[in-house]
Amino acid sequence: MPSTPSAQFSLTIRVEIADRPGMLGRVATAIGDAGGTIGAVDLVAIEDGLAVRDITALCSDQSEWDGITAAIAAVDGTRVLDTTDRTFQMHLGGKIELHSKSPLKTRDDLSMAYTPGVARVCKAIHEDRDKAFQYTIKRNTVAVVSDGTAVLGLGDIGPEAAMPVMEGKAVLFKEFAGVDAFPICLDTKDPDEIVAIVKALAPTFGGINLEDISAPRCFEIEDRLAAELDIPVFHDDQHGTAVVTLAALINAAKLTGRELRDMRVLVTGLGAAGVAVTKILQSAGVTEIVGCDSKGAVHIGRPDYLDGSMNPIKRWYAETTNPERREGRPGDVIDGMDLFVGVSGARVMPAEALARMAKDPIVFAMANPNPEVSPEEAAPYVRVMATGRSDYPNQINNVLCFPGIFRGALDVRANHITEGMKMAAARAIAEIVPEDELREDYIIPSVFNRDVAPAVAAAVAEQARSAGEAHAHNELGFAATDEVRVAAG
Amino acid sequence: MPSTPSAQFSLTIRVEIADRPGMLGRVATAIGDAGGTIGAVDLVAIEDGLAVRDITALCSDQSEWDGITAAIAAVDGTRVLDTTDRTFQMHLGGKIELHSKSPLKTRDDLSMAYTPGVARVCKAIHEDRDKAFQYTIKRNTVAVVSDGTAVLGLGDIGPEAAMPVMEGKAVLFKEFAGVDAFPICLDTKDPDEIVAIVKALAPTFGGINLEDISAPRCFEIEDRLAAELDIPVFHDDQHGTAVVTLAALINAAKLTGRELRDMRVLVTGLGAAGVAVTKILQSAGVTEIVGCDSKGAVHIGRPDYLDGSMNPIKRWYAETTNPERREGRPGDVIDGMDLFVGVSGARVMPAEALARMAKDPIVFAMANPNPEVSPEEAAPYVRVMATGRSDYPNQINNVLCFPGIFRGALDVRANHITEGMKMAAARAIAEIVPEDELREDYIIPSVFNRDVAPAVAAAVAEQARSAGEAHAHNELGFAATDEVRVAAG
Repeated sequence: MPSTPSAQFSLTIRVEIADRPGMLGRVATAIGDAGGTIGAVDLVAIEDGLAVRDITALCSDQSEWDGITAAIAAVDGTRVLDTTDRTFQMHLGGKIELHSKSPLKTRDDLSMAYTPGVARVCKAIHEDRDKAFQYTIKRNTVAVVSDGTAVLGLGDIGPEAAMPVMEGKAVLFKEFAGVDAFPICLDTKDPDEIVAIVKALAPTFGGINLEDISAPRCFEIEDRLAAELDIPVFHDDQHGTAVVTLAALINAAKLTGRELRDMRVLVTGLGAAGVAVTKILQSAGVTEIVGCDSKGAVHIGRPDYLDGSMNPIKRWYAETTNPERREGRPGDVIDGMDLFVGVSGARVMPAEALARMAKDPIVFAMANPNPEVSPEEAAPYVRVMATGRSDYPNQINNVLCFPGIFRGALDVRANHITEGMKMAAARAIAEIVPEDELREDYIIPSVFNRDVAPAVAAAVAEQARSAGEAHAHNELGFAATDEVRVAAG
Repeated sequence: MPSTPSAQFSLTIRVEIADRPGMLGRVATAIGDAGGTIGAVDLVAIEDGLAVRDITALCSDQSEWDGITAAIAAVDGTRVLDTTDRTFQMHLGGKIELHSKSPLKTRDDLSMAYTPGVARVCKAIHEDRDKAFQYTIKRNTVAVVSDGTAVLGLGDIGPEAAMPVMEGKAVLFKEFAGVDAFPICLDTKDPDEIVAIVKALAPTFGGINLEDISAPRCFEIEDRLAAELDIPVFHDDQHGTAVVTLAALINAAKLTGRELRDMRVLVTGLGAAGVAVTKILQSAGVTEIVGCDSKGAVHIGRPDYLDGSMNPIKRWYAETTNPERREGRPGDVIDGMDLFVGVSGARVMPAEALARMAKDPIVFAMANPNPEVSPEEAAPYVRVMATGRSDYPNQINNVLCFPGIFRGALDVRANHITEGMKMAAARAIAEIVPEDELREDYIIPSVFNRDVAPAVAAAVAEQARSAGEAHAHNELGFAATDEVRVAAG
């Protein structure tokens, strides 16, 4: 997999350069020769014939940094003063903070926002618990809950180390959908404890976004919480991935003139994402699905099914997919498939095997950072290709789903995020790409397309309303409550 | 207790007034005659000889509102269009929100704040858990945890109804000390569960502020959490009240020429605040203390001590106070006391009983909204009087303590808030009032004195450092870490 310079490995180099014509050009050339791409050049100071500059260099890996500083230092008349890792710098002190919505500058402010005035608000909620949605942050606040057991591709790194991801999620919730999300990383891996804790936390929140909890624990935790809480519970690694995958598939099917119900699909990786993708494809009408885990294709004739050692979710998988009992590794069972969805790991699919797929094959190879098959190697065999990476076309990224789906659910105070709401979200994402603009390298909108989250929110809210899942009439319904409007003349 | 117009009962009245000279004056007079005080008058629109105005009227109670709107409506040429309760209006949608610290506008921003760049930060914390204090919100974030069992004077109103208080606390933390505090209201009253939950939440937070948890459960919960967590745990109802009470006492003692070790003290109310006040007075050298609960003075001869029905904290109280075994109601045991601290309830102390106190008596009657004895009735007998109310001099308010004490503890990454740190906080608050400005009605700084929190933070940090409780060298220590500064030339 060729790697390209990226901001994630960007370095800010503070360098002192003799203030002579041509010097900056020589430094820039040195950086380029050492593999760096210059992102920005700032002048910090000029004094005594010396210019101090901050140069931001994008690299493809941390290992290039030493070479770049050495190359700069080798230019006569320069001195490297300091280098800063921009990614770590951005994380200093964390990525989110709390603000007050109204000023608290006078005794009057204090007597309304805090004691004694706050007591009247507390009493109103005590008399009608539902008013928490009007007078507290509950209305707009989601907990991003993780136990740190399945973080990105890093695995079980613990709750402290998971925080930067959950904070990043909170940033995205706010940026794309105005949702206040707060990261909660739990120091326990016990499903019973996690369920009990999240239930106890629920009064504060209007929704629960589960994140990076390892399979199969994540299935039980989500199912129990969804059954026991009256606020939406959504495991993003499952359903966010499933929704965006379905959105991409809807458009890929349009482009290749297929109907979903006629498609044969291979899924590799039967963790949170693989199971959820399978379920949403079934909901969307796909009937022929084969799933592979690390032991190969799952079916009811496999020894671990027969001897009872298979976990409950995979038993379900075996029972509802692969009726032909296809056997073998992903490359063995790909024959005739219309779609290959990879949510497993790097390079599980030999590129040549793709030649045995049906006509106009569609491949979503979503393992990060290294897909199941590289786009370059797959290119000769595949008509539509998507990955999880930002540096290839058609990035399947959960960011397209979770901000909008929670926005919609919160706006109508839905108790659950139903299958119907997920399907509505998928269709809304797909429809952002106008039919006449659909191309092999444009089946899914950019993560920075600002139209996506509002469209998803509207579609999800509408679906909730029409299915009787909505408990608020409109987004501004809370403004005209008894307490606030004391009387109208 | 006479009540004065207050912003907590303020009403915004939108009224249409014929645009003729003298009309506004007549409306203002009508409001005043009906008991309201005008806070502000705004012009909304003038059209067709009619002015629409928003008039904010402060009242002493909600019951006056109808009379005020009726009085306005009775003025010829006016029409009340709408009235708004400003306190509830301020609470719509809650009082706090989350913000991102850095922009997320481009793919480069995303690749640093979220995937793929965030993985490097996660790995660094996984390798050294301590780095959570550098690269996550932990460093500056406190959980304000309640189970809603002892909220203000309202009692057990449940977690949802407690939220407005906890949000208010978060606003104060930010406003006075720049601490990011997040409200967590728990749907359980079981001490074991609360301890387990808060321990599980700890990776996210740099400190735990317990709030409005009823006694005696609060003692056990705090003790167990403080013992088992490596971040500060502070039950504000206990220690915030105790610290500010001690601060007030330090100055009252100076003013009346007393030494703390010579003082005799009566405490009424042996809940969270009463026990903590007693403990901090003992730490400060006071030896003669008598405490009364609803059954009167506590001592080791009382039947409920002898028959073993007294709870553990009151047993401790009986064993360490009241060696003379004084008996009776507060008014019976006040003879010769230098200080009366009321943290119980309205009117437990007959004003005349104060005449039996020692010379230059000091009374802190802190029950809210109605003190143990009203300042008006106490005035003939008392030299120094403080209450918990903002509309009398000398308000003993926790806001003077909790923002600064957590600021100081977070700044030095203290593992605990020790007795020494609380004493340092009390002295710092007391010292804000210059000795030559001390007066009977000015022994404690205003809650809006912006010097208090920084002074408390500095004193607490210094105490932690000198006692070896500090784990960070200075507030900016985290800026120069290995990962951020990659190399220096």
